[in-house]
Amino acid sequence: MKQNAYSEIFADARKKRPLVYHITNYVTVNDCANITLCAGGAPVMADAPEEVEEMAGIADVLVLNIGTLNPGLIDAMILAGSMANERKIPVILDPVGAGATRLRTQSALKILDEIKVTVLKGNAGEISVLAGAGGEVRGVDSHRSGGDPVTVARDLARLRGIVVSVSGQTDIVTDGTNTLLIDNGHAMMGSISGTGCMVASVIGTFNGISHKPTVATTAAFAAFGIAGERAAAVANGPMSFKTALFDHLAEMDPETLSTCAKISKA
Amino acid sequence: MKQNAYSEIFADARKKRPLVYHITNYVTVNDCANITLCAGGAPVMADAPEEVEEMAGIADVLVLNIGTLNPGLIDAMILAGSMANERKIPVILDPVGAGATRLRTQSALKILDEIKVTVLKGNAGEISVLAGAGGEVRGVDSHRSGGDPVTVARDLARLRGIVVSVSGQTDIVTDGTNTLLIDNGHAMMGSISGTGCMVASVIGTFNGISHKPTVATTAAFAAFGIAGERAAAVANGPMSFKTALFDHLAEMDPETLSTCAKISKA
Amino acid sequence: MKQNAYSEIFADARKKRPLVYHITNYVTVNDCANITLCAGGAPVMADAPEEVEEMAGIADVLVLNIGTLNPGLIDAMILAGSMANERKIPVILDPVGAGATRLRTQSALKILDEIKVTVLKGNAGEISVLAGAGGEVRGVDSHRSGGDPVTVARDLARLRGIVVSVSGQTDIVTDGTNTLLIDNGHAMMGSISGTGCMVASVIGTFNGISHKPTVATTAAFAAFGIAGERAAAVANGPMSFKTALFDHLAEMDPETLSTCAKISKA
Repeated sequence: MKQNAYSEIFADARKKRPLVYHITNYVTVNDCANITLCAGGAPVMADAPEEVEEMAGIADVLVLNIGTLNPGLIDAMILAGSMANERKIPVILDPVGAGATRLRTQSALKILDEIKVTVLKGNAGEISVLAGAGGEVRGVDSHRSGGDPVTVARDLARLRGIVVSVSGQTDIVTDGTNTLLIDNGHAMMGSISGTGCMVASVIGTFNGISHKPTVATTAAFAAFGIAGERAAAVANGPMSFKTALFDHLAEMDPETLSTCAKISKA
Repeated sequence: MKQNAYSEIFADARKKRPLVYHITNYVTVNDCANITLCAGGAPVMADAPEEVEEMAGIADVLVLNIGTLNPGLIDAMILAGSMANERKIPVILDPVGAGATRLRTQSALKILDEIKVTVLKGNAGEISVLAGAGGEVRGVDSHRSGGDPVTVARDLARLRGIVVSVSGQTDIVTDGTNTLLIDNGHAMMGSISGTGCMVASVIGTFNGISHKPTVATTAAFAAFGIAGERAAAVANGPMSFKTALFDHLAEMDPETLSTCAKISKA
Repeated sequence: MKQNAYSEIFADARKKRPLVYHITNYVTVNDCANITLCAGGAPVMADAPEEVEEMAGIADVLVLNIGTLNPGLIDAMILAGSMANERKIPVILDPVGAGATRLRTQSALKILDEIKVTVLKGNAGEISVLAGAGGEVRGVDSHRSGGDPVTVARDLARLRGIVVSVSGQTDIVTDGTNTLLIDNGHAMMGSISGTGCMVASVIGTFNGISHKPTVATTAAFAAFGIAGERAAAVANGPMSFKTALFDHLAEMDPETLSTCAKISKA
């Protein structure tokens, strides 16, 4: 098998083992740590204001996830994000549940306003709410976009000058000019908690060694999706699916991305 | 297979996908999220005072679990519980470790005093302590009732005007007048951490779509117990048992409850 | 098979089921709870200042882990540790990430200064930093000792009057005079998050029923390592390895330690 731009990033992550610093929620944090390892990264989690700048000071990439947020945690994210910006390492933001409560919407917008985010990753409802395009978010799973997701994401990417990615049956990655669609994945990914958080950690890992956020983010969706397809083929239910999802990502040849990724231009 | 009152609730949960809002501990929170999905619900977790009322305002049911509590978290539970009461959605309370420390006992009693709880679910020791019937709780697993568990539970249900349920080899569900015993389950459920928390999430899911808390809670114990029986048959040890427990609940036909549930009147 | 000093401790833990009280991080806390059960202990987690002394007052052993620390949590650890010292129950310290940030280094040293720790367990980098021997810690996985790990550990054990243990390809346990090396384990243990935290919980469990910390800690490394060897033989990847690791520890005959443990004197 031969390499392409996507598979090279995956191979590179395995080789360089980027330090992926997470400030994240306590629901799926263990999954984030383990999926980072499966993708080739080294995870670290820390949220005390006393150490977040120092941790961001040694990290290769910062992943912010507001799944179980509180105002103190958002302050810690801003501190860590400022250091990440100063060091010019990428910042990934997963605005879990933005739209479900004002605290979540406002906190996500505050981070977008005060930190230079590299990649924003949400579901169609969250992205739509943050784009000011309407939409609805009920809890952290159920949601509805306020417009065509590709258009909403593209407009938000242009407005903010960031890469916007939308997870869904077809994943979307756009920098406002180039928009890629990824058709890997499996419906069983919705049968377990945390696949959204996990893919953000894979996005973090790949961005930790690449300076091309659109390509790295697309590669992450494809790799995670292919692992999901393969896991679904051997699963007896959601939890054996989850076990197999981690196993298949960890055991995947990076070259697989050059043959099995279903990536197209929008 | 034919439906009965128990299997109908399970089938209904799968159809309506209730939003099950948890304020819970950080030890078993991921298991609670995943078992909720397996039972047919949509889990959401949040504990910041700034958003708990709003989250309770969109939820179908509220599950409170004091497994890793602190006074601020109890305040958040009271806030969320008040909104749940205002909206007349059910509130499930799992008083983890009540009796082991004063903070846990007093916090559980405070919630019972200030919030209209729909279903209280504990082990025999916890329920006995909260009933003022004596008993002993050592940590969060080991415990001893201060009297006959059925009598203690029934008296507490009458006193508080709530449904009281007791997990154990035989599970007990009582509203003070009608008392049901559920004989499903397997000893391996004690070999993993969090089965008590998990069944509370299943109870939450079923109460999220039913207005009959005794029936819904009984159905939850039966469904979870049957999944445990089936998982034990294929497990190599506690962690493969845990994987199979989730898988079997998720893959279970709701109609199974009408044929395999071992429910009797006390 | 016959018993030896190591296998007797494992058998004894299964019989007596020590209450292993953890103040730990929210990343691997569920794994710590479950591995404690697999090793024969009963886990309990609590961190509110209002209850930590009471919980330490009923526990058989205290495990402190600074994986996701903050100053308030360290205060809770000091409170719980003081009660543990007063009751003369063992205290295990896992200084996760010491050396990676000042908060972690200073917090670990503060605990070592203010609490009589029984067993310190870290990787070579963490132990080296805490010994003042230099070394480097990047995140929580990657690290480098500032000197020969056996010498560094032995010197620190003498200086502090504690048992020091170092996890690695060869694990080290020393009281400053007697030093034991354990050669069980498998490279796959590095492919999942939290094996360091997990072995600390096994160390806690075995110290919870033994007054010989060097022997108990050595037995813990051996039992956990043997489970890892067996799990690796059946795993398809890191997450099925993790499942099998728990299963094999739980299903292991304690006598296995007398035949499969690879323990030698340094």
